[in-house]
Amino acid sequence: MSVEPIRWRDDALELLDQRRLPREAVYVTCRSASEVAAAIRDMVVRGAPAIGVAAAFGMALAVRRGDSLDAAANELRSARPTAINLAWAVDRMLRARGNLAEAQAMFREDVEGNHRIGRFGAELLGRSATVLTHCNAGALATAGYGTALGVIRSAVEQGKEIAVFADETRPYLQGARLTAWELQQDGIDVTLITDSMAGHFFQQRKFDAVFVGADRIAANGDTANKIGTYTLAVLANAHQIPFYVAAPISTVDLATPNGAAIPIEERSAREVTEIGGTRIAPEGVAVRHPAFDVTPARLITAIVTDRGVLRAPYEQSLRRSASGDTDR
Amino acid sequence: MSVEPIRWRDDALELLDQRRLPREAVYVTCRSASEVAAAIRDMVVRGAPAIGVAAAFGMALAVRRGDSLDAAANELRSARPTAINLAWAVDRMLRARGNLAEAQAMFREDVEGNHRIGRFGAELLGRSATVLTHCNAGALATAGYGTALGVIRSAVEQGKEIAVFADETRPYLQGARLTAWELQQDGIDVTLITDSMAGHFFQQRKFDAVFVGADRIAANGDTANKIGTYTLAVLANAHQIPFYVAAPISTVDLATPNGAAIPIEERSAREVTEIGGTRIAPEGVAVRHPAFDVTPARLITAIVTDRGVLRAPYEQSLRRSASGDTDR
Repeated sequence: MSVEPIRWRDDALELLDQRRLPREAVYVTCRSASEVAAAIRDMVVRGAPAIGVAAAFGMALAVRRGDSLDAAANELRSARPTAINLAWAVDRMLRARGNLAEAQAMFREDVEGNHRIGRFGAELLGRSATVLTHCNAGALATAGYGTALGVIRSAVEQGKEIAVFADETRPYLQGARLTAWELQQDGIDVTLITDSMAGHFFQQRKFDAVFVGADRIAANGDTANKIGTYTLAVLANAHQIPFYVAAPISTVDLATPNGAAIPIEERSAREVTEIGGTRIAPEGVAVRHPAFDVTPARLITAIVTDRGVLRAPYEQSLRRSASGDTDR
Repeated sequence: MSVEPIRWRDDALELLDQRRLPREAVYVTCRSASEVAAAIRDMVVRGAPAIGVAAAFGMALAVRRGDSLDAAANELRSARPTAINLAWAVDRMLRARGNLAEAQAMFREDVEGNHRIGRFGAELLGRSATVLTHCNAGALATAGYGTALGVIRSAVEQGKEIAVFADETRPYLQGARLTAWELQQDGIDVTLITDSMAGHFFQQRKFDAVFVGADRIAANGDTANKIGTYTLAVLANAHQIPFYVAAPISTVDLATPNGAAIPIEERSAREVTEIGGTRIAPEGVAVRHPAFDVTPARLITAIVTDRGVLRAPYEQSLRRSASGDTDR
């Protein structure tokens, strides 16, 4: 594994500071649940599975310091609202009373789950394929290996010829800063484009498939993911290209009936009006910054989980898989 | 008119340096056709109608200096490949033997044409409307007033309540830097979003119409415009929102049969990987940078020209209008 976004060392949680990539790879050390919550809020660590695992270690840190587990749970859960993995991880750690071994098990399970997602997803790609991806659903968004990028890695490991187009993913540039860097590290063929270029390359029949991650999958299959994902789903549909979501089953939230019930985080205007400290818009301009959008289930060709490839009707396939039965 | 992108002063062409907006409004002085060609290439001035008018003055400068008019024509014509207005303006100035009065007439005609586009286009908007626009098809893209933003201005002047959403328009950020600034100058309600957010707001039924400019309109109505335009057309179509192109009739190129015949400029990778001198992607990453895309005629609700609102079938309506007959 070339990239280690999350590691436990010397009784502390070390998080690769994703705000500073690709310029430098440095770690931030967290010694309390509050520090982990701050790191999640400030996007030192991001990506639904990664913030879930980080929060699990945050709960373990609370116990080891003798801090209130309930207070830690509340603080971690409220660090970011959209990804369900955060609440899922915190609840599981509450049941385990903050046991470090449980956090470590969740870490291992996430990596193993991603390898399964990768194998299931790679079967959906031909011997030679160009895949469009958005944001970063890679090793950096998980405990390791990645979901959408796990599928890419797995296909490459199987000897398939895979080329990746990575949307830069404004405003936070996870595609330019993280996905391009992460795939480069592994020697995987990656081409960077701006989000606005995806349509043009769909029109040119450049892509064989779209693979994205997910922050929350509602019971009916509607999927919240990084802002811009919905546009790709509309484009894929208009060009009859398969659109796949890759995510661990822990991203499925059966308690959320559909996309309309998923809270969409609105982040700071400055992430839009400034890039690397450079102001790119006039002072005082109004800005909107929804950090996620919702892709309706009808635009999703399949959801690739660690329990298999799920197809519509998603109400049934998700409920079966999320309750433990496998479904291929 | 609040913004003067192009002005003739003291026997020289002064161009508002759009690379430095919105931080500062300074002019670059051009005293030869070569300097004008360089300013067009380097995007001191951009926007199809504006580079046409600038090139016309470039031809006049060549004559006044005693430089070869044919050499000037070749240099100016090849400064940028996609916008047809450049070739159109150079050809017209060749026929007028580089007469300054002809360039000045073209300047006036462009501004007057934009006011007509504005009036025709404003009729397509209700008493209260939210309009999405892309790139900058404003005063800054023309001799003044603007095409798509001319429609906005005209509707506002008629007392309509117009709110504008401006895509930032990566990679060159014309929306963030130019459209947001230009509308702010005029006190028009503008909200800045990233290109990736447009789909989300379509889904939320935020927009009543899309208005964009054009760099070249082929004989069948296929329209080249800033990269990202095609995606908006697909989104508008998927959400049944009208998608309008606003452009002077000089943007119509009857010699180009369809979109496939329009040359698409590929610009520098650095415009993608750096923003304001800040590197946002890893060194050595492959990049694509088509600066334009082509929206097929079937996705265009109407083309708003200075000679009226043209509708499908565009072969007929464009040919009639471009040959001089009015067509409403």
